Amino acid sequence: MSTEYPDSRKRRITALPGMLALALTLVPGLALAQDAPELLTQDNANILWTLIAAILVMFMQAGFACVECGFTRAKSAGNIIMKNFLDFGAGQIVFYFLGFGLMFGTGSSLLGLSNFGLSGVADADLPWSYTFWFFQSVFAATAATIVSGGIAERTKFGTYVLVSLVVTGVIYPISGHWAWGSLYGDAGWLESTFSVAFCDFAGSSVVHSVGGWLALAGALVVGPRIGKYDNDGKARAIPGHNIPLAALGVFILWFGWFGFNPGSTTTADSSIGLIAMNTSLAAAAGSLAALAVSWLRFGKPDMSMTMNGSLAGLVGITAPCATVLPGSAILIGLVAGALVVLSIEFIDKVLRIDDPVGAVSVHGVCGAWGTLACGLFNTDGGLFFGGGLAQLGVQVVGVAVFFVWAFGTGLITFTVLKKLMGLRVSEEEERKGLDISEHGSEAYSGFQIFTVE
Amino acid sequence: MSTEYPDSRKRRITALPGMLALALTLVPGLALAQDAPELLTQDNANILWTLIAAILVMFMQAGFACVECGFTRAKSAGNIIMKNFLDFGAGQIVFYFLGFGLMFGTGSSLLGLSNFGLSGVADADLPWSYTFWFFQSVFAATAATIVSGGIAERTKFGTYVLVSLVVTGVIYPISGHWAWGSLYGDAGWLESTFSVAFCDFAGSSVVHSVGGWLALAGALVVGPRIGKYDNDGKARAIPGHNIPLAALGVFILWFGWFGFNPGSTTTADSSIGLIAMNTSLAAAAGSLAALAVSWLRFGKPDMSMTMNGSLAGLVGITAPCATVLPGSAILIGLVAGALVVLSIEFIDKVLRIDDPVGAVSVHGVCGAWGTLACGLFNTDGGLFFGGGLAQLGVQVVGVAVFFVWAFGTGLITFTVLKKLMGLRVSEEEERKGLDISEHGSEAYSGFQIFTVE
Amino acid sequence: MSTEYPDSRKRRITALPGMLALALTLVPGLALAQDAPELLTQDNANILWTLIAAILVMFMQAGFACVECGFTRAKSAGNIIMKNFLDFGAGQIVFYFLGFGLMFGTGSSLLGLSNFGLSGVADADLPWSYTFWFFQSVFAATAATIVSGGIAERTKFGTYVLVSLVVTGVIYPISGHWAWGSLYGDAGWLESTFSVAFCDFAGSSVVHSVGGWLALAGALVVGPRIGKYDNDGKARAIPGHNIPLAALGVFILWFGWFGFNPGSTTTADSSIGLIAMNTSLAAAAGSLAALAVSWLRFGKPDMSMTMNGSLAGLVGITAPCATVLPGSAILIGLVAGALVVLSIEFIDKVLRIDDPVGAVSVHGVCGAWGTLACGLFNTDGGLFFGGGLAQLGVQVVGVAVFFVWAFGTGLITFTVLKKLMGLRVSEEEERKGLDISEHGSEAYSGFQIFTVE
Repeated sequence: MSTEYPDSRKRRITALPGMLALALTLVPGLALAQDAPELLTQDNANILWTLIAAILVMFMQAGFACVECGFTRAKSAGNIIMKNFLDFGAGQIVFYFLGFGLMFGTGSSLLGLSNFGLSGVADADLPWSYTFWFFQSVFAATAATIVSGGIAERTKFGTYVLVSLVVTGVIYPISGHWAWGSLYGDAGWLESTFSVAFCDFAGSSVVHSVGGWLALAGALVVGPRIGKYDNDGKARAIPGHNIPLAALGVFILWFGWFGFNPGSTTTADSSIGLIAMNTSLAAAAGSLAALAVSWLRFGKPDMSMTMNGSLAGLVGITAPCATVLPGSAILIGLVAGALVVLSIEFIDKVLRIDDPVGAVSVHGVCGAWGTLACGLFNTDGGLFFGGGLAQLGVQVVGVAVFFVWAFGTGLITFTVLKKLMGLRVSEEEERKGLDISEHGSEAYSGFQIFTVE
Repeated sequence: MSTEYPDSRKRRITALPGMLALALTLVPGLALAQDAPELLTQDNANILWTLIAAILVMFMQAGFACVECGFTRAKSAGNIIMKNFLDFGAGQIVFYFLGFGLMFGTGSSLLGLSNFGLSGVADADLPWSYTFWFFQSVFAATAATIVSGGIAERTKFGTYVLVSLVVTGVIYPISGHWAWGSLYGDAGWLESTFSVAFCDFAGSSVVHSVGGWLALAGALVVGPRIGKYDNDGKARAIPGHNIPLAALGVFILWFGWFGFNPGSTTTADSSIGLIAMNTSLAAAAGSLAALAVSWLRFGKPDMSMTMNGSLAGLVGITAPCATVLPGSAILIGLVAGALVVLSIEFIDKVLRIDDPVGAVSVHGVCGAWGTLACGLFNTDGGLFFGGGLAQLGVQVVGVAVFFVWAFGTGLITFTVLKKLMGLRVSEEEERKGLDISEHGSEAYSGFQIFTVE
Repeated sequence: MSTEYPDSRKRRITALPGMLALALTLVPGLALAQDAPELLTQDNANILWTLIAAILVMFMQAGFACVECGFTRAKSAGNIIMKNFLDFGAGQIVFYFLGFGLMFGTGSSLLGLSNFGLSGVADADLPWSYTFWFFQSVFAATAATIVSGGIAERTKFGTYVLVSLVVTGVIYPISGHWAWGSLYGDAGWLESTFSVAFCDFAGSSVVHSVGGWLALAGALVVGPRIGKYDNDGKARAIPGHNIPLAALGVFILWFGWFGFNPGSTTTADSSIGLIAMNTSLAAAAGSLAALAVSWLRFGKPDMSMTMNGSLAGLVGITAPCATVLPGSAILIGLVAGALVVLSIEFIDKVLRIDDPVGAVSVHGVCGAWGTLACGLFNTDGGLFFGGGLAQLGVQVVGVAVFFVWAFGTGLITFTVLKKLMGLRVSEEEERKGLDISEHGSEAYSGFQIFTVE
């Protein structure tokens, strides 16, 4: 604890331009210089803002935990939360030793191969690199957390430990390198291969689609929950057990997204206001669109669809948040909110893939939509703003590349783990709930709870 | 994502005083100038702080959702949360297209008539105006959210959509204009009509009283919940279903209020510390006063009263937070905390108006108290600080004006909507709970819940 | 509300070095000076950062409320939350009038005796001192909150009011003075007595161990809950009633800790990135270690142990967060996470002290560990970094001193209050639950709840 008050007024003038100190000796009559106040450098302002943004993104772990928990059943409520602790706990450690270097190290445009554990970072760069590492580590943890929602309520905890490590340590960092490049020099291949750079400012593709497609692979390999589809293959709704908790989670995510998007500037400059405004307008529009579309389709405004609509708008605006106008942000959000309702139904009823919380639709599908939206709405290069098809073309390539990469590595990872150690709990354990069978205790001790199949 | 590290040290010296750049060419021997660090401008610091404050205020949506949900019954827990999503979602969109222009546009001292959708804002002002819009939009959403608490558990969702739009799009922005004026020039009439300006720094009146009086009008027109008053007109307590959730909501609101009050400086200056200190002391004092008064009146320290006491203190200090001393903040909070207990009882038992969460007392009554408190405790102009009656007189006028405006437009709005489309669900729907009847699903699937009348 | 946009561009150049203003009159041709942008001073940046950090720490009250509530039983869920409101409400008021002066006033190296209610602070220091007071007041509230967890579910609310006042007003501030000294001049005796200063950057000892040892004294004096130990003295598990709520609380605490540790710089400088990184790595490592150790010992990864492991890592890194490397932070967290599992078992099964939420182990034991860790891992002075035994020796003294002080004054306080007014509710009240018996209402009205003994 620093209690140096009131010394703050006495501090040396360390932040004055070096030239000024020199000027003092050259220009006569400047003896008052020592009264000049110390000023905040832009470098320290960037550290301050990036740290605050990282703290907000960190809190999204709480949001994911609440949403995934609230949208699933009471008998496995503790298990999904344990996966969130594991994702963040193991995720930060593996991202320290492995992921950061693969993502931001120098190597090739395909992957980084240095700076593991921040080794090789120059001393003068350390203060910033600590901050930047923290910001990136909370991003990395987000991708893994998305996966746990798609395979909730039937996946073995022990196997999931490895899924989480592979996602945060390898799959996510490599795809991140492609779009965002290295710290020291190299661009990723999606930045440097085409005449225009792939646009994904805060990660609609890099974070959300990657997480969503991994969830899709997982849900496919692990199979639907018992009772999700009846003998005719007809989908049955398995309602979440705690809508207020899920709603709180959505608000926490909305809150944390103001770190995710505006913080991706990693610079305390004047652009952050527009990014925040776009982010919130898209989320608002996504909520309304999902509310309206669910009202039209089901006759009543649906709670979980509306909440997923908010998240859809947020995911959709994540790539274009810094490069579009507020009116475009509203349109992007409206499309995302409508899309998520249709996608959830399609995956549930047509593809018959059991994604308990809608992770594939929210993060995968709307992440892809947001990535494409850059090609349509960017004020510089978007199709609707006179930019032609070049940007849109690159965005299509990016969407396809991240789908192939994440869904492909996801299929391999889940299939290999299924063979090696089993992916799914026993039928009896699943019926009993994963809290008792995997962790030996209940989430809601003392409450009378009906075990819904 | 910007990964420009370690370029931060190489950036051009863009923030140096323009004069300095010139000096470099005039004063010999200053060749070191390019080593001078870039500095954070006050303008960008203001954007940074106002954005952070706006993010905190945005999170108050989660707080309101938790408080209103926790203080009402389980069978309508999802419905109240849907209203919060609607308030924020529709609120931001309508405030973008309509409300912001009415509130901050140039027109007259009565209302603004320009800058709708930020049109007509000079390019150089855009970075700040995006930030300012976001800050104001989360304020606007707060006013609407207050209303939903007062009419909880019996109001049609479809009708509420229109209530929310009218409040955020028209009623709140116009009253805001009166106290806070335009962006480009005009003062509101409450600022400019009297010898001293009306004092409402962060909105005890503009936001909270307006929301509270609208809630009063709504509760009056929609009528009490079934079973709230027995045949003799005696009030029955209908306890909330989730006190921990409500408590979390109160803490979230307390937390968000540090954006609401200190952020209303919209400037990163040295005044924000006192504002935060006053805010927290008043909330602390409000909690204690409500705890003590409820203990004296009911024989036991009451949970929901104590929590409403915290909020009462926060609402009370919102107007005077920047202009009073910490000791005064404690007194203001103590009075607010005592007042809220007495007011809740008075409205419930004497007026027999059913306000399920105490919104009218917390926001309306304590908002009025806070507004008056400026006239008593302001160090510059307050009656107790030798300032005479001028400020107090203006505050009384302001309190009366906002009551007439909000309660009046509220009565009109709710009465017209009642005639046009019906305000209240059927008796059967209300007994069953609004979650099933209005949204087709339950908030707590799997839990055994007794339907309390 | 300040709507002074777009005047921000017109503001006077108040923050320019005074020398520069003078230079303008001396150097010819500098007539452009009035176009220079205003810059943010380091003093105002410090106020900004310290305020934001304080807001994050304030939110930890919500985290403690959720954790303590979730880990205890439904029948007393409201009571523990009321204690949190009391701790924070009464805590801030008593810290204003009494605690701050004892902690940061000028007097001797043993305790401060001035600056009560911020009296005697120079006018020029007030903006900073308001901010600093707010930061310190939320720290003080933390210590008291820790105590309530250890004595949960059987302590009289009326008596607890006095416990809370004594802890926040006297016991915590005095120990804080020893390590952190005065605002104006004096060092505390632990800073100034030995050849090296006692190291406790953000309060592993000052806040957490003190809170934990007070909880130990309380749990000892008040005795175990009915049914906790059977006739043979064998411990029975009394599971918490709401694991998702507790998990949310842990994430809130983790989030708030980024104010607690990096904010303890009270300076917006470049050191905050490392502190945040260390904080999160230790929490991650603590979660994993507790997960693994509980898995090994109980055969399944335990939910509440894992969550306590996160907190253990956070408490452990609190003292050394600013003075160790990231790799060391991981080790410190791993040890803390393992330690907390063993300590909880030891206190529960061997010492047979009933600490419902593990407060003594998390805050007391891991706070001591973190304090010792400075002596082992500090890059300047740590044993493992070639620093010899001097720092470690002082840390051992500090750990012992805070144990004797807090446990001793705790025993006295609880014993005296037990004699004077009774510490424990009646057996009937305890069986019924403290919500009904102490506050006259239930936390979960409408839910079917089994009263677990």
